[in-house]
Amino acid sequence: MITLAVDAMGGDIGLDVTVPAAADFLRRHADVRLILAGDESRLRAALAEHADIAAKIDICHASQVVAMDEAPQSALKNKKDSSMRVAIEQVKNGTAQAAVSAGNTGALMATARFVLKTLPNIDRPAIAKFLPAANGHLTLVLDLGANTDCTPQQLFQFAVMGSELFGALRPQSSTARVGLLNIGTEDIKGTEAVKETFSLLKNSPLNFIGNIEGNEIFGGGVDVVVADGFVGNIVLKTIEGAVKFMGGEIKAEFQRNALTKLGGLAALPALNNFKQRLDPRRFNGAIFLGLRGIVIKSHGGTDAIGFAYALEEALHEAKADSLNKIQAGIAQKLNTEPTENA
Amino acid sequence: MITLAVDAMGGDIGLDVTVPAAADFLRRHADVRLILAGDESRLRAALAEHADIAAKIDICHASQVVAMDEAPQSALKNKKDSSMRVAIEQVKNGTAQAAVSAGNTGALMATARFVLKTLPNIDRPAIAKFLPAANGHLTLVLDLGANTDCTPQQLFQFAVMGSELFGALRPQSSTARVGLLNIGTEDIKGTEAVKETFSLLKNSPLNFIGNIEGNEIFGGGVDVVVADGFVGNIVLKTIEGAVKFMGGEIKAEFQRNALTKLGGLAALPALNNFKQRLDPRRFNGAIFLGLRGIVIKSHGGTDAIGFAYALEEALHEAKADSLNKIQAGIAQKLNTEPTENA
Repeated sequence: MITLAVDAMGGDIGLDVTVPAAADFLRRHADVRLILAGDESRLRAALAEHADIAAKIDICHASQVVAMDEAPQSALKNKKDSSMRVAIEQVKNGTAQAAVSAGNTGALMATARFVLKTLPNIDRPAIAKFLPAANGHLTLVLDLGANTDCTPQQLFQFAVMGSELFGALRPQSSTARVGLLNIGTEDIKGTEAVKETFSLLKNSPLNFIGNIEGNEIFGGGVDVVVADGFVGNIVLKTIEGAVKFMGGEIKAEFQRNALTKLGGLAALPALNNFKQRLDPRRFNGAIFLGLRGIVIKSHGGTDAIGFAYALEEALHEAKADSLNKIQAGIAQKLNTEPTENA
Repeated sequence: MITLAVDAMGGDIGLDVTVPAAADFLRRHADVRLILAGDESRLRAALAEHADIAAKIDICHASQVVAMDEAPQSALKNKKDSSMRVAIEQVKNGTAQAAVSAGNTGALMATARFVLKTLPNIDRPAIAKFLPAANGHLTLVLDLGANTDCTPQQLFQFAVMGSELFGALRPQSSTARVGLLNIGTEDIKGTEAVKETFSLLKNSPLNFIGNIEGNEIFGGGVDVVVADGFVGNIVLKTIEGAVKFMGGEIKAEFQRNALTKLGGLAALPALNNFKQRLDPRRFNGAIFLGLRGIVIKSHGGTDAIGFAYALEEALHEAKADSLNKIQAGIAQKLNTEPTENA
């Protein structure tokens, strides 16, 4: 039996998204329990219409909510009874195997670091996410914004954690192919930090396939893409923008005139499949990597369908025992590597 | 009458792309002449089938070709009679108003800098490109890879040059809206260099709209996007990859079964329009910015249609007198700004 803790108040919408998502999720998974952290009376009211799964839900009252634009330090200092923090504390005390929140990323990361602490030999946690690539492949990209400036040692730690996570979640794959995001495939390309990371990776036991360029994220030839959080976040947002832009352009073409509208009707099955396959909600659920506990960050503006995917990601990680595998990988691959904190 | 100089041997394919592109281009533009730099006898042979535009072409013999993987320093030292260099020299000596090459980017930039020199008050040239955005808007993004590490002063110079170029090429627009590519819209976001650039831009006479995130490149709300060449190149390649990936996914959906294939036939007019509108060849032609002359870099692997678009970009710039406008803008906006070279 796996138990997940949910920040039921987090996100742009809060309860009206998290509760229906939780109910749907529980109806699909017989072997899972949820702890919903948030305002108890509001939660009881929202759960009234989901009596069928009530036995699989515990409510953990939290009197505060972290605002979506609240500074991380303010959340840490002034919101000690926030739904976000209460959810993470369930992981800390072992009541839950993972926490999920759609709350503000900075505050969630700061709270998770404060409550759970960082794994041994890891300087800073990173944010990772699976992105769709050719032939149904999923590519893990990190860091997506937790760390603006990174040392080569930190980037190397990201690579080790990403490789272990990929292996834990995709046990049928061979050792994860790790690529370093760069502006050319030659060894001499990139910033000083990236060049030094290249040499750390090259001399490591990881399955390092070398530098990769931005387009290769989608090619299916790499499993783990390593970048600092500045580049990674810009890349993630750029992809989101490109997908949305192209979707809009296709739509506009089909609405151009009566003939194209008719064509659009005939093409509906294929277009709907396409839309569904690349639906950002299906890829919702960013992974906080490097903490002594599993924390999944849902997009703040997602709906119940999207939030349920973030719950799936948490369940997938908890079932795969990813945390222990990452810790074992770190112990094996980072102990002998030079780190600034060594 | 405008004259463009063409590196006729450059690119993955060379003459078989550049000569047909040149011929098509000349047939569309009565007021333009071309100088083709390259092997004279091979050029004469290739031009034999284009007798109708022969009077508008001059051949400038060049005995060497820079290889696509040749190091910039090797090209500078050992290829003093390359087609690339001879083309650029036509701009230097005033015979041509712009040069176009599909040759290797590093060698082309090194040669252009050596022959033409950098504009006053500009530390380093940048590479810029127009990318398609919502509602038919074109967004100018720079630097796309010329400078891996940039100082705030250099990023500010890119902003000034980009703003002037946008204004010169889009005279009907109001003052270019300049955005700084970052990982959040708040002032405090980003690397140290980006934060310092933010304050330079904020206190400048440019129409600075603040930090923008990756997705905003496509929104149509920004005209000039400024980034260092490391981030800019990764963003460009990521967009190329995302567009190709999505195109492949759409195609796969329509080929799934007989029904979707039929739907695809009905949808062909709209799909073809879509494909055509986002055809990367239409956006071929990257602009080298910050040199004492106009140099346009075509994608190395493009075909004659794509190469002709690079010629169009060069013509557009030459006609708009962009170089003088950029120089005037620099004199006005950079003289009073602190620069490292000041």
